[in-house]
Amino acid sequence: MTTESPNTAPGAGLDALFAPRSIAIIGASNDWRRFGGRPLHYLQRFGFDGAVYPVNPGRAEVQGVKAYADVRDVGAPIDCALLSVTAEDTIAAMTQCAEAGVRSAVLFGAGFAEVGGEGPQRQQALLSIARQAGMRVLGPNCMGLVNAQAGVYSTFASAYEDVDRLAGSMAVVTQSGGYGGYLLKHCFMRGLGVSHFVATGNEADVDVGEALAWVAAQEEARVLLGYLEGVRNAASLVRALEIARRLRKPVVMMKVGRTPEGRVAAASHTASLTGEDAVYDALFSEYGVWRARTTDELLDVGYALSRGKRPRGPRTGVISISGGVGVQMADFIADAGLALGTVPEPTKQRLREIVPYCSPSNPIDMTGLVTANHDLLGDTLECVLESEAFDAVILFLGIVGMAPTMAEPITRILSQVCARYPERLLLLSVTTPPELRQTYDQAGFLVYEDPSRAVAALRALDHFERFFGRTAEQAGPVPLFSADLLPESGGPLNEVQAKRVLAACGIRPPREHVAMSPEAAAAAARDIGLPVAVKVVSPDIAHKTEHGGVALGVVDEVAVQATVERMDARLRRELPDARIDGYLVSEMVQGGTECILGVTRDPVFGPVVTFGLGGVAVELLRDVVSQLAPVGVSQAMRMMRGLRSWPLLAGWRGAPPADTDALAQAISALSHFAVAHRASVAGIEVNPVVVLPKGQGLVALDAVIQIQPQEPSL
Amino acid sequence: MTTESPNTAPGAGLDALFAPRSIAIIGASNDWRRFGGRPLHYLQRFGFDGAVYPVNPGRAEVQGVKAYADVRDVGAPIDCALLSVTAEDTIAAMTQCAEAGVRSAVLFGAGFAEVGGEGPQRQQALLSIARQAGMRVLGPNCMGLVNAQAGVYSTFASAYEDVDRLAGSMAVVTQSGGYGGYLLKHCFMRGLGVSHFVATGNEADVDVGEALAWVAAQEEARVLLGYLEGVRNAASLVRALEIARRLRKPVVMMKVGRTPEGRVAAASHTASLTGEDAVYDALFSEYGVWRARTTDELLDVGYALSRGKRPRGPRTGVISISGGVGVQMADFIADAGLALGTVPEPTKQRLREIVPYCSPSNPIDMTGLVTANHDLLGDTLECVLESEAFDAVILFLGIVGMAPTMAEPITRILSQVCARYPERLLLLSVTTPPELRQTYDQAGFLVYEDPSRAVAALRALDHFERFFGRTAEQAGPVPLFSADLLPESGGPLNEVQAKRVLAACGIRPPREHVAMSPEAAAAAARDIGLPVAVKVVSPDIAHKTEHGGVALGVVDEVAVQATVERMDARLRRELPDARIDGYLVSEMVQGGTECILGVTRDPVFGPVVTFGLGGVAVELLRDVVSQLAPVGVSQAMRMMRGLRSWPLLAGWRGAPPADTDALAQAISALSHFAVAHRASVAGIEVNPVVVLPKGQGLVALDAVIQIQPQEPSL
Repeated sequence: MTTESPNTAPGAGLDALFAPRSIAIIGASNDWRRFGGRPLHYLQRFGFDGAVYPVNPGRAEVQGVKAYADVRDVGAPIDCALLSVTAEDTIAAMTQCAEAGVRSAVLFGAGFAEVGGEGPQRQQALLSIARQAGMRVLGPNCMGLVNAQAGVYSTFASAYEDVDRLAGSMAVVTQSGGYGGYLLKHCFMRGLGVSHFVATGNEADVDVGEALAWVAAQEEARVLLGYLEGVRNAASLVRALEIARRLRKPVVMMKVGRTPEGRVAAASHTASLTGEDAVYDALFSEYGVWRARTTDELLDVGYALSRGKRPRGPRTGVISISGGVGVQMADFIADAGLALGTVPEPTKQRLREIVPYCSPSNPIDMTGLVTANHDLLGDTLECVLESEAFDAVILFLGIVGMAPTMAEPITRILSQVCARYPERLLLLSVTTPPELRQTYDQAGFLVYEDPSRAVAALRALDHFERFFGRTAEQAGPVPLFSADLLPESGGPLNEVQAKRVLAACGIRPPREHVAMSPEAAAAAARDIGLPVAVKVVSPDIAHKTEHGGVALGVVDEVAVQATVERMDARLRRELPDARIDGYLVSEMVQGGTECILGVTRDPVFGPVVTFGLGGVAVELLRDVVSQLAPVGVSQAMRMMRGLRSWPLLAGWRGAPPADTDALAQAISALSHFAVAHRASVAGIEVNPVVVLPKGQGLVALDAVIQIQPQEPSL
Repeated sequence: MTTESPNTAPGAGLDALFAPRSIAIIGASNDWRRFGGRPLHYLQRFGFDGAVYPVNPGRAEVQGVKAYADVRDVGAPIDCALLSVTAEDTIAAMTQCAEAGVRSAVLFGAGFAEVGGEGPQRQQALLSIARQAGMRVLGPNCMGLVNAQAGVYSTFASAYEDVDRLAGSMAVVTQSGGYGGYLLKHCFMRGLGVSHFVATGNEADVDVGEALAWVAAQEEARVLLGYLEGVRNAASLVRALEIARRLRKPVVMMKVGRTPEGRVAAASHTASLTGEDAVYDALFSEYGVWRARTTDELLDVGYALSRGKRPRGPRTGVISISGGVGVQMADFIADAGLALGTVPEPTKQRLREIVPYCSPSNPIDMTGLVTANHDLLGDTLECVLESEAFDAVILFLGIVGMAPTMAEPITRILSQVCARYPERLLLLSVTTPPELRQTYDQAGFLVYEDPSRAVAALRALDHFERFFGRTAEQAGPVPLFSADLLPESGGPLNEVQAKRVLAACGIRPPREHVAMSPEAAAAAARDIGLPVAVKVVSPDIAHKTEHGGVALGVVDEVAVQATVERMDARLRRELPDARIDGYLVSEMVQGGTECILGVTRDPVFGPVVTFGLGGVAVELLRDVVSQLAPVGVSQAMRMMRGLRSWPLLAGWRGAPPADTDALAQAISALSHFAVAHRASVAGIEVNPVVVLPKGQGLVALDAVIQIQPQEPSL
């Protein structure tokens, strides 16, 4: 459906959209509070120093700026046109823009693919015009964009109406304009400056991934906040996350539609095809994205990151004025997987000198005394920082910091101490009005009201420190697969063919033979060693067990022959159309850990590899991990370690450790195979795969590979 | 250690403490901002209409009230004395109070059991005086108490300094004064009135359970908020929760020291013996207590409960002005286990008439249009309420309600609609300054900023509705145990003796015999049927497997005899002092589900029964449930259903359902046995117990019962 154009290469033409030097506003309004008035107002108020051309056939001037009756009358290059016109007028306006040589457009108006009726056609029509003219388009049905550094305010977001302090290190990229505006307002309420804002709306052309990629590459955007409902183009999102990772920029993302209920709601909201939520988890874990579940979390973490300091390690010191809250904070720190550092003996001694009845172990309880005598508070903090025993320190002041008369001397003393330790990460949990909050913030603390939120933010900082600190992975050699692994015919694979594929991935079959007669089966059993398993071989019988096509633990040759005879007779009677390619006689593998390994194909993200331990309890508890294919060997190892049941592989209660090296190799190889054959392989399931003790490898006891029926080429 | 006195019966003498008609203040200060000044100030300011007697040897008047040099000079009955004196002066003051016939005392001062040195002795001394005189004591080292209805402000909590609106439906009972003051301030900041406040401090006499019990019985206390660090007297807490349950008063509790880190901190803070945290979970689940993890959650839920409305069911309607946030809210509702109700067709039709481009399915997206036209917002809400399709409705207005100019007309219209549906539960998620928040609250909504918190509060309301709606349980007959189940000697039990106990609880042993010789063992195996298990019987060998005292699946009589011979020789060599009572030959039980069932003795709460499925994966994932003994049969059934692995018992993937009726009976019976023998039984472990298919009962394959060495009576 997409018309190719030179501009659809990732990122091409986006500078004209995101950093224009000249902007036309079609439908510019003289009333700055109207949708068509706000962008011009913002551009002037925030000092855009490029050219601005209001277009309004009814006025010679708009908001004091010379206006044009038609965009084609401007007679100068136009990087970007903002269209604040009805859906009905959009096509004409786009045509005029194209004729005027406009290089990009932001379409605010609704009434396109998000509604029924003529909407989708209208969107397709405007896209055709844009493609023909080489224009990049944001929207339609979008809230526009901001590039604060360049003074570009191509948006009608009301959140900018009453802000003074504008630029900052947070970049906000969102699919939903409504939520985007909400988030902007909350950023400003918290005093967080925003370097870039992009709301992608219907994504007729530029999508959230492409926008995020452009923004991630800008120096001023140091913390990336994202809001996703569902992604249509996986590659563009992955590319954006790769850029962010390479530039070591933290990404905090809210992806909604986590639950079936939410996905139904997302589908009706954006009509987008959303990938399975676990796939987003997999993607985010791979790229170190912090997934926020609530707006508070998104902003708490974003704020923490905006300071640019991260803890070097997990040792967290707590100084509180209430023992009860100290206990709470110890709980939160344990929940977060952080560590309560240990106060060194000399520091304890000194703390006891400062406040004789204090409790100098971590969490340190300095009692209410330090709130009455602010010097003691400063001495305490100094003494704890001096010890260098902690990677981060959280100070709890509770309601002590409420009154300006208290806050002023406290912040003065605390900021003196902080100034002597500028590199230290300090958090403050304090109940205080917003104006005083800023005072504490400027003293050098990350300020949160509830201690649980301070600890949660610290946990996220610790995550990013560890993620960015991870040594770059050596991409292992990509396995090559011989071309004839999949039959040319393209039909389904039988078990023997599927096991050939697995063998190429390092998962061997058990000792087994395909027998073409009951007598041959008995002879095969003698070769292999009894007892054996007997299974029908057929590309047409997917559920062998349900049709009685499997017998396990057959103990002697007579029984093997009889089993094949009875099985064959029944299957030919019950499934007369099924091709039967023989009977597989297999050794009964002893020992090892039964696991499941599979590949599914996500409609958006492509092949996804999933691994978990078998056994009824683990299956019930859904203890599986997934990752986008391909995965490297060390990534596969990380997947395994992410299982709650990982200890069962590592050697639980004296059992020999499983051959996890071979398993990681196999997971990686299978994922590469799935990528290499993504067009034809619809799914792979190896269930069970037995992981033997270290050095002994893996055995696939059963395998199904589903082949996608080839669509005739167009 | 405790001196018996008539007043130590639960609750006795507490009225003098909690609802005094006359109060003396020892150490009363003329400066109302000092510890010794605040109580008198509060009593006067908030209109206590009983008698107040400041005691201060240096002044004829304190804060305008006639003062006394000595409490013994008052010459009138004194219900309660507040002691604002140093630890050193406390004993003398208490003695004077006793001589003056004071009936109760609140001790603010620190320097007692919470510190080292003379502190603990000093606390013991003041307790002796109190017991002798029949005085009840709150504290020492406590922040005191408030009974707003009675005008009693026996506290120095600074949170009361600047409140106007005082009484309300929330009661706060806390062990930590520091946290209690913090919580009070936060209640007031949210406009939540407090009917009672009690901080128990060192709990020399009155503990948190006794305080909670007294408060729970007061009519004005309709929502009970609690803060625990560790409870010393389980019975008093249980009694309080029983009272709350009987009166159908919701309890929301923060119990800190959830984690090992927190428990260490709690121990050093209060020096109290805290029960295992899982035991608190068990207790809270039994009494329907909502366990809050953060202050925000405690207050969010408390606030929701203060309105007194609960949803009749889980059907939650969402009306939003942003589709993106609607998706988020659908996720939160699914997370909470609530249901998105379905909008009836006629309602959808009507919503489309109100806003043509709306999305009328739940979550309903009315688009930003309704925020520009407030009548449409009112019409939308009216239309949704009229449908009666929802048990609760959450309206998301985002930042629309920020400005007073917007809030005023919106609240006017919304409150008109709400007034027509007074019984409906309505929640509002809106970003708004505190003063406007109250406006929305008064319009009839429960107001939260973040939608996730509105949904979390609704979840808690739904919990209480279901908990209080549960039909009262019939206490089943308590099983009687014959007195000779435990040997009189009081020593440890061997496996055979332990299994006798279990048989009395409805858990039968496998078919088995104790053989006294290898030959007898072989004969027993023939009787029972091969293969068999062989185990040493000894009260002195707790870990039979580790000492090679167990052989499973012994296949023939010769092997049985040889096994017993070798086992006996080795054990007598390696453990020459162990008594050997013979060899147990047992059938190998086929089928069924292996489970573990046990009783531990919590130092505070006594016997706790624990149940879970066996098997390496389930053990690894710690999927077990615990409950305080005794448990009834239906309570045992609820325990089982609380397991994530419950489907394995209910009949997973076509397996026959397990005999859960027999299992519930057995859990209940074993818990009653543990209670009946709580003095002597230190622990019970039945591992594994095999639960056979329905109608076939349970078999204990192994059992250990630990007997507490009897302490000589004093």
